[in-house]
Amino acid sequence: MRFSARMGGVRRSYIREILKVTQNPEIISFAGGLPSPDHFPAQAMARAAAEVLADNGPQALQYATTEGHPPLREFISRRYKATWGLDIPAENILITTGSQQGLDLMAKVMLDVGDAVLMERPGYLGAIQAFSLFGAAFSTADLGPRGVDLDQLEERLRERPKIFYAVPSFQNPSGATYDAATRRDAARLLENSDTILLEDNPYGELRFKGEDVPPVRAFLDQERCALMGSFSKIASPGLRIGWITAAPELMHKLVTAKQASDLHTSSLAQRILYRFLETNDLDAHIAVIRQAYGERRDCMVEAIRRHFPEEARTTEPEGGMFLWGTLPAGTDSEEVFAKAIERKVAFVPGRPFFVDGTDNAFRLNFSNSTPERIEEGIKRMGQCLKEVMARGGSAPAGAEPGLDI
Amino acid sequence: MRFSARMGGVRRSYIREILKVTQNPEIISFAGGLPSPDHFPAQAMARAAAEVLADNGPQALQYATTEGHPPLREFISRRYKATWGLDIPAENILITTGSQQGLDLMAKVMLDVGDAVLMERPGYLGAIQAFSLFGAAFSTADLGPRGVDLDQLEERLRERPKIFYAVPSFQNPSGATYDAATRRDAARLLENSDTILLEDNPYGELRFKGEDVPPVRAFLDQERCALMGSFSKIASPGLRIGWITAAPELMHKLVTAKQASDLHTSSLAQRILYRFLETNDLDAHIAVIRQAYGERRDCMVEAIRRHFPEEARTTEPEGGMFLWGTLPAGTDSEEVFAKAIERKVAFVPGRPFFVDGTDNAFRLNFSNSTPERIEEGIKRMGQCLKEVMARGGSAPAGAEPGLDI
Repeated sequence: MRFSARMGGVRRSYIREILKVTQNPEIISFAGGLPSPDHFPAQAMARAAAEVLADNGPQALQYATTEGHPPLREFISRRYKATWGLDIPAENILITTGSQQGLDLMAKVMLDVGDAVLMERPGYLGAIQAFSLFGAAFSTADLGPRGVDLDQLEERLRERPKIFYAVPSFQNPSGATYDAATRRDAARLLENSDTILLEDNPYGELRFKGEDVPPVRAFLDQERCALMGSFSKIASPGLRIGWITAAPELMHKLVTAKQASDLHTSSLAQRILYRFLETNDLDAHIAVIRQAYGERRDCMVEAIRRHFPEEARTTEPEGGMFLWGTLPAGTDSEEVFAKAIERKVAFVPGRPFFVDGTDNAFRLNFSNSTPERIEEGIKRMGQCLKEVMARGGSAPAGAEPGLDI
Repeated sequence: MRFSARMGGVRRSYIREILKVTQNPEIISFAGGLPSPDHFPAQAMARAAAEVLADNGPQALQYATTEGHPPLREFISRRYKATWGLDIPAENILITTGSQQGLDLMAKVMLDVGDAVLMERPGYLGAIQAFSLFGAAFSTADLGPRGVDLDQLEERLRERPKIFYAVPSFQNPSGATYDAATRRDAARLLENSDTILLEDNPYGELRFKGEDVPPVRAFLDQERCALMGSFSKIASPGLRIGWITAAPELMHKLVTAKQASDLHTSSLAQRILYRFLETNDLDAHIAVIRQAYGERRDCMVEAIRRHFPEEARTTEPEGGMFLWGTLPAGTDSEEVFAKAIERKVAFVPGRPFFVDGTDNAFRLNFSNSTPERIEEGIKRMGQCLKEVMARGGSAPAGAEPGLDI
């Protein structure tokens, strides 16, 4: 077989491989990045599907335009205006097959082999994968408690990466959020660069503590930022409906690339979703999710206080689905993982989120477990941590420590 | 803006641009490649959607595996066995977001810039687009009344293209079909090459005349062929569900590439489709479509005999959705198109289906127009043809004539 060079450097998602291990229902899994299925609006979607197929069956089942279902694009445009006062016309919004496709399309239209992409450190695995397939050369800027490290951002932007990929709200994997000042300062740096900010915001509406902050896009000229969003976390991921907003020149290229990639996103799924949005109160639905995730986050934070050794530092995120942990340098989270699987509890070791092999961090998902299972799982994981840490670290000297976010 | 080099050579689909012109319901359009929405199973899909969301709502709305819904993959596997005696296990079948995504994934895993891809001449536009985006260098082998020209195929295979892309049954755009002997001979040539056959078979089940012939894949070792299929023409395209079959090594790469492209195809759409297939008789449904398309094809063929000038030669396909026309060398079908649009009838000039600019051919779609509109549209188009041909050709000397298929 003669495969393309790009396939040489790409591994399958480590996380999706871990998910196979955790299919076993006996395993308490904090590994997935899954929203809670208990909060999917299945009945409302069923009504929406019935109405769409009764009223517009032939159109919902026919080929459709690449750009997406016009009323759905209008809905997204109106929501940006209502929430943030942002003027993003519907014609600058492209519906994508999940926001993962937005990453693929941006890579397709922007990257030649060896082009630089600036990532947050740690960074979102799906983006590392999508950009790797197009031969990206990665650089990184550390995340800290207030967001991206601005000195590092400034320095890296001087190297003229084509894209800076950022998840400024409740990032996957770290849960970190840029505060308002960091957003403004990052925008100012980007405004003076020729790098495009690819801002990914799947979790922004899932805030259960603190005050909402606008996307970085709000502080930037439209030419300098492509902003992505998704219905996966606020409605349901099985629809595979996300979007990307871009200025007209970039939008034109993205549409061309999408045409060649899958013609268009499922018209049936788009119309069902739009009918759901038209006939239900999305904000009320999001409020229910926020409440549930907030409770699960509190439960995990409290269980960690009781069961984890003090040296395992963890974040206390204000929203989203993830909590981030850092172990003393030299403690390998994959060793903890091996032990945890024996005890029937799973999480994601941090290594795949770093392009430099950092190994003393880990990610915990709290959205997809009940409080009871969170308590029991954290207790088991605490025992594993204590055992591995008591034995002393095993990592090679010189491995860079994970970040204390 | 600093775009990737690959975007330099890619135009938007000419056909999809034409479709915008033909949104006007006053225009009789033979331009689209659309199946007939009169024959979509909207009510059966509505029942399937209701059942899926009532019985398995949370699963249908959750993230799912990249490979696709397992029972759907089993269904496709069983159907290959029942129809052709082909052993294609479910684990060698990847569900894609329409078969257009199969083209994108194959290009991703196989092609580096400048790699050779062998196409049929004329060739499917969506494939030209998908491969162009990955920098393919095209060669071609002519289509004739019995299928691909075997001498040309043999010669081109000696140049070791990575992929030979073929639509052996009722091809888009030409409607041409390889006969059984051509399939066997083409398979023998491929067996002795190191080129992978990418066989695309969206129309194979839409035969209304003559005898069914097995896919070329049936005569080949699994390592030498990736076979694609689609539910777009036999169920409905708005679902965006196709598939690609491949031997394990290639399958592994395709799954990795799909993970980075859109994680997975809509689980809701996959489950609705599978429930539809489980609770309805697909073969009976296809028989209805076949009957309707056969009538429309007969109607178009007869109208052409009455209204087209004799020098405009057209095919009489045994299945599928398209009929192909060839004008005397020097007559530019785009000139006919301009005149036809004034008379409110549309078709697709042949140029975009050739990588060499051939301009005296055209494609007519018959699946998406009623017999009455076919009669009226062909009559108008015949007048345009007569007028343009009476004036004499306008094409530059030396343009290669379109094919008489």
